[in-house]
Amino acid sequence: MPELRRDPIVGRWVIISTERGVRPRDFIITPPPQTSPVSLCPFCPGQELLTPKEILAYRPQGSEPNSPGWSVRVVPNKFPALHVEGELGREGLGMYDRMNGVGAHEVIIETPRHQETLAEMPVKQIEDLLWTYRDRLLDLKKDPRFRYILIFKNRGAAAGATLEHTHSQLIALPVVPTAAEQEMEGCRQHYEDKERCLYCDIVRQELADGARIVAENPEFVTLTPYAPRFPFEMWILPKRHAAYYEESQKAQFEFMAPILSETLRRMDRVLARPAYNMMLHTSPLHESSGPFYHWHVEIIPKLTQVAGFEWGTGFYINPVSPEESAKFLREAEL
Amino acid sequence: MPELRRDPIVGRWVIISTERGVRPRDFIITPPPQTSPVSLCPFCPGQELLTPKEILAYRPQGSEPNSPGWSVRVVPNKFPALHVEGELGREGLGMYDRMNGVGAHEVIIETPRHQETLAEMPVKQIEDLLWTYRDRLLDLKKDPRFRYILIFKNRGAAAGATLEHTHSQLIALPVVPTAAEQEMEGCRQHYEDKERCLYCDIVRQELADGARIVAENPEFVTLTPYAPRFPFEMWILPKRHAAYYEESQKAQFEFMAPILSETLRRMDRVLARPAYNMMLHTSPLHESSGPFYHWHVEIIPKLTQVAGFEWGTGFYINPVSPEESAKFLREAEL
Repeated sequence: MPELRRDPIVGRWVIISTERGVRPRDFIITPPPQTSPVSLCPFCPGQELLTPKEILAYRPQGSEPNSPGWSVRVVPNKFPALHVEGELGREGLGMYDRMNGVGAHEVIIETPRHQETLAEMPVKQIEDLLWTYRDRLLDLKKDPRFRYILIFKNRGAAAGATLEHTHSQLIALPVVPTAAEQEMEGCRQHYEDKERCLYCDIVRQELADGARIVAENPEFVTLTPYAPRFPFEMWILPKRHAAYYEESQKAQFEFMAPILSETLRRMDRVLARPAYNMMLHTSPLHESSGPFYHWHVEIIPKLTQVAGFEWGTGFYINPVSPEESAKFLREAEL
Repeated sequence: MPELRRDPIVGRWVIISTERGVRPRDFIITPPPQTSPVSLCPFCPGQELLTPKEILAYRPQGSEPNSPGWSVRVVPNKFPALHVEGELGREGLGMYDRMNGVGAHEVIIETPRHQETLAEMPVKQIEDLLWTYRDRLLDLKKDPRFRYILIFKNRGAAAGATLEHTHSQLIALPVVPTAAEQEMEGCRQHYEDKERCLYCDIVRQELADGARIVAENPEFVTLTPYAPRFPFEMWILPKRHAAYYEESQKAQFEFMAPILSETLRRMDRVLARPAYNMMLHTSPLHESSGPFYHWHVEIIPKLTQVAGFEWGTGFYINPVSPEESAKFLREAEL
């Protein structure tokens, strides 16, 4: 069973997940280049039995579970960072706190087509993926052990991906992580001061200013944030206030799919298909953050190294201003 | 002039430093492998004019500034993230906050010998380096514009190093960064509750337990922390309570040098000379953190990728427990 441990100084939780049995030599021997020939890819149709049994799949022709014929497919991670069975088992060890590593770790296979990227797939396929995210959030929200769910995507080995076939991941946690706490706290304070949502204020100021806008449609905007940690960091925000991704309506998904597609295509065009991470930030579960929190997507291309200065301070040095990043992205020919 | 910008949500500052004129293509074209032949190394003796003029050098034979004959040499960074001249110029831009990028960015060349690593150098040379850190902290502390100083080291391209010749860096900041604030806050709360230093309590519990101890001498201990973000993460702590590195006495430096050397040699042995980051965490300037803060060094070998889950949550998944890491390090044959 993996273990959750809390750093007694800054309160940050970590997952100690030793089940793969990693030894020092695994870090020394350079891993072979990441290639997954279609014939061996566990995410390709026909290889359904190479993954754990599916949790959910969209099957337009009504085919059997764990067989081909799906358009999006969700399976448990074969090497989960957390286990879905078990009690939380909180305990103190002297001055330290620990919990059993109870949670969910799922893989969302975005398409049956091995070569397709999220940027290149039909907008309708992206819309299905967005509905899948919602379905999994609504289902896992019923489990009272979970307090936060992160849906994220790693593309490229430099961004932490270990399989090439395009996929997203979901991790449900029994605690609200510090990064989410900090965003919630900033939003709560702003709301207490002004009775307005902080992200709504940002969207208004950015749309009025224009210098950091990358893409826009009636329901969504993509922008480079005012104080980005990384070059070409982007946020996609709904223009209308909404704290919970999973409460989005059909119209939202219809407008979210094309702007996500456009944003990724602009990034791929300007930076020649970089490795990147994408994270869906939505409200913690069972918290009434409706008036003050605002869900959004963050995208960070993996272009620079995080080094001693960043680890030591939490400060980031960014060699490209967000105004310049936005200009390159906005002017890219698609 | 670089610019400091504050994220309005979580309060994190970033440095927008565009003076190297980085363009998208700089991220696309793969940089050539990092090699610096001795003949072109700006940190080697005889090439002193390739760096900005020195700020400090230890010259045992009393040679002239900016000429050979030094054992440790401190110079301004040629491409500084912050500029030492100028006013802070704080201002608001709508809902955003900015400051001029005023600060210091220095390079500490640890040895005149191009091939030598910090782990391999004579202990006396490491002691000189520790004194150099102190001298620079004491000098920069006089500048009332600065509120925090980080001394750090990146070894290897994967850890962000751009030059091979072994060196440390120093950045003085006009604000206390969030990572330091969080550590201070945790320590302050513990002190208010218990009238004891949190790190002193950790040192006591770890020495009694023993499972996470890597190395020890009369004044210092190296341990793997209870909740490490990364495999083989290590902290070096003074056993006696001390908030300010720069107030250390001769005996502390005499015991710090050999344990730093031993710690790095153990890491190099177990992990075959990995890329790593090392950070000196000391008290913010002009704050009376004497009773509750405890300076220390953090070392993180660069073995895993930080990916979407970590960026999205601030949580870390660590595939090696600190007890196992400590055992490998402790039992390494030196």
